Amino acid sequence: MKGLWLENQQLQLKSDLPIPEPNKDEALVKVLQAGICNTDLELLRGYYPYQGILGHEFVGVVEQGPENLINQRVVGEINAVCGHCRFCRGNSPSHCENRSVLGIVNRNGAFADYLTLPVNNLHRVPDSVSNDVATFTEPLAAALEIQQQISIDSTQRVLVVGDGKLGQLVAQTLALTGCDLWVIGRHREKLANLAARGIQTALETDIKERSFDIAVECTGNPQGFGFARRSLYPRGILVLKSTYAGKLTLDASALVVDEITVIGSRCGPFAPALKLLEQGQVNVKPLIQGRYSLEEGIKAFETAQKRGILKVLVEINH
Amino acid sequence: MKGLWLENQQLQLKSDLPIPEPNKDEALVKVLQAGICNTDLELLRGYYPYQGILGHEFVGVVEQGPENLINQRVVGEINAVCGHCRFCRGNSPSHCENRSVLGIVNRNGAFADYLTLPVNNLHRVPDSVSNDVATFTEPLAAALEIQQQISIDSTQRVLVVGDGKLGQLVAQTLALTGCDLWVIGRHREKLANLAARGIQTALETDIKERSFDIAVECTGNPQGFGFARRSLYPRGILVLKSTYAGKLTLDASALVVDEITVIGSRCGPFAPALKLLEQGQVNVKPLIQGRYSLEEGIKAFETAQKRGILKVLVEINH
Ligand SMILES: [Zn+2]
Ligand SMILES: [Zn+2]
Repeated sequence: MKGLWLENQQLQLKSDLPIPEPNKDEALVKVLQAGICNTDLELLRGYYPYQGILGHEFVGVVEQGPENLINQRVVGEINAVCGHCRFCRGNSPSHCENRSVLGIVNRNGAFADYLTLPVNNLHRVPDSVSNDVATFTEPLAAALEIQQQISIDSTQRVLVVGDGKLGQLVAQTLALTGCDLWVIGRHREKLANLAARGIQTALETDIKERSFDIAVECTGNPQGFGFARRSLYPRGILVLKSTYAGKLTLDASALVVDEITVIGSRCGPFAPALKLLEQGQVNVKPLIQGRYSLEEGIKAFETAQKRGILKVLVEINH
Repeated sequence: MKGLWLENQQLQLKSDLPIPEPNKDEALVKVLQAGICNTDLELLRGYYPYQGILGHEFVGVVEQGPENLINQRVVGEINAVCGHCRFCRGNSPSHCENRSVLGIVNRNGAFADYLTLPVNNLHRVPDSVSNDVATFTEPLAAALEIQQQISIDSTQRVLVVGDGKLGQLVAQTLALTGCDLWVIGRHREKLANLAARGIQTALETDIKERSFDIAVECTGNPQGFGFARRSLYPRGILVLKSTYAGKLTLDASALVVDEITVIGSRCGPFAPALKLLEQGQVNVKPLIQGRYSLEEGIKAFETAQKRGILKVLVEINH
């Protein structure tokens, strides 16, 4: 089969990859479409050690697996877990200490004709949800993780820092809480996407320091972190939703003096994400800014790496 | 009156300072004894801008103020607040945006014959609590702030990083929760203080990574932060109890991947601190390693700055 293979920071289109064989708990999924995520770009830059097929945002069709799933469209949670470690038995299977992660850690990913995942990871896609929309399930679930970690309500002032793909999804989910939401970014046209949905937006320079209860950092750069930090009231909460290239340098004393909470946030729940997509409560279509075939995969990544580009999709088995 | 005056990173004993005049909400307190804190040492090193009399850990006697407090021994909360800002009206008066802080921000401190504080800040010291013990009320309250912020119970594994004065107090208060508590440090004799109270202690090298629910960083150095971080299970909580000289550089991606919570922690509640001291549930006496008169104040600070020294007391009006 064909697939986009990462090795030594080089991405290549291979056409002689073996079709993976699912083990007894797994399904074989034919990939219909997959999306390029910032994590893919970071893997490409060598920030994490990984060798294999990239990709973890996908929609596909089950070819082998339990009968009720055969020929069904599915999306899949990316952490394949052991089921018996401390975290699996507890409430944190996504932190399984024996996990592999689709296209990220020890498990071939979605930029290929086929992938395998544990059957338990798969969620049926409602018929009314298109492939384009379904491809956003994974990043939307990650956005929803914030609300699994902290409670957000209409009394709170919340700032999303960053108008990129992550910021756009986070902002749309937070808007549903009724909080006093602001999104800041550097791109007027991206902020306009959000303003069109009734979300308050501003350029960075327009926001007053020390005036938010919660700030969600979605830029992945130290400037964004610093901005989020300074935007908070004392005892505010800074949600780190982005990974960072290299180390982050910060004023830890300010965290102590203002008793700030910083909380890292990663993968989230698929079921509510699919529901929001089905109900049309989150609009992902304006985020799609590129569309390539798997054969054009290298070019797809080149586009995704361009400054300011939102989501690039790779159509695989259409 | 006499007092230890800080100006341009120079500490000097002045003998011609005016006795402060309390305003209508304040009391005049004759200082009996005060303790040197790491924050004092950091102010001396110029980490924060402050000019005035140093000192914020004290026990004193009220000379002017409401009748019921006259001639009573008191300790005092260090944040003098406005009572009407957002944080005072809310649940965070210690974050008052108009506050002055005894010996730290815009308010002369305790290394002097007299100080003033709002009457509301004062707490009577029970007769059975000696001056030596009462001097630890403020840092002990700061230790108790942790339990105001997060709930700690007997099911949790908790690590205190650092065996200095702060670590010693934090460890003793956490031990009362029944949690599975470990303290790590670099000084066998300081760890022995804690071991004598039944607390599990270890040298840094003996602790397994990724094996604690909560870590409390009490060293104020980046190595301590890194150690605390690595000691945590995924979804663990890192309490920052120390301020840091300069900036802290950390791996923010690891916070995201492991969904770690970092929470800054500062001043805490005086009433429960005084109660623990009265009941003898925390033993502060082994922490006292130096005792000087106010006239010897410069020397007291020299001693406090020596590596490995715990609490140095300055006896003022004995
Ligand atoms: Zn597991
Ligand atoms: Zn106030």
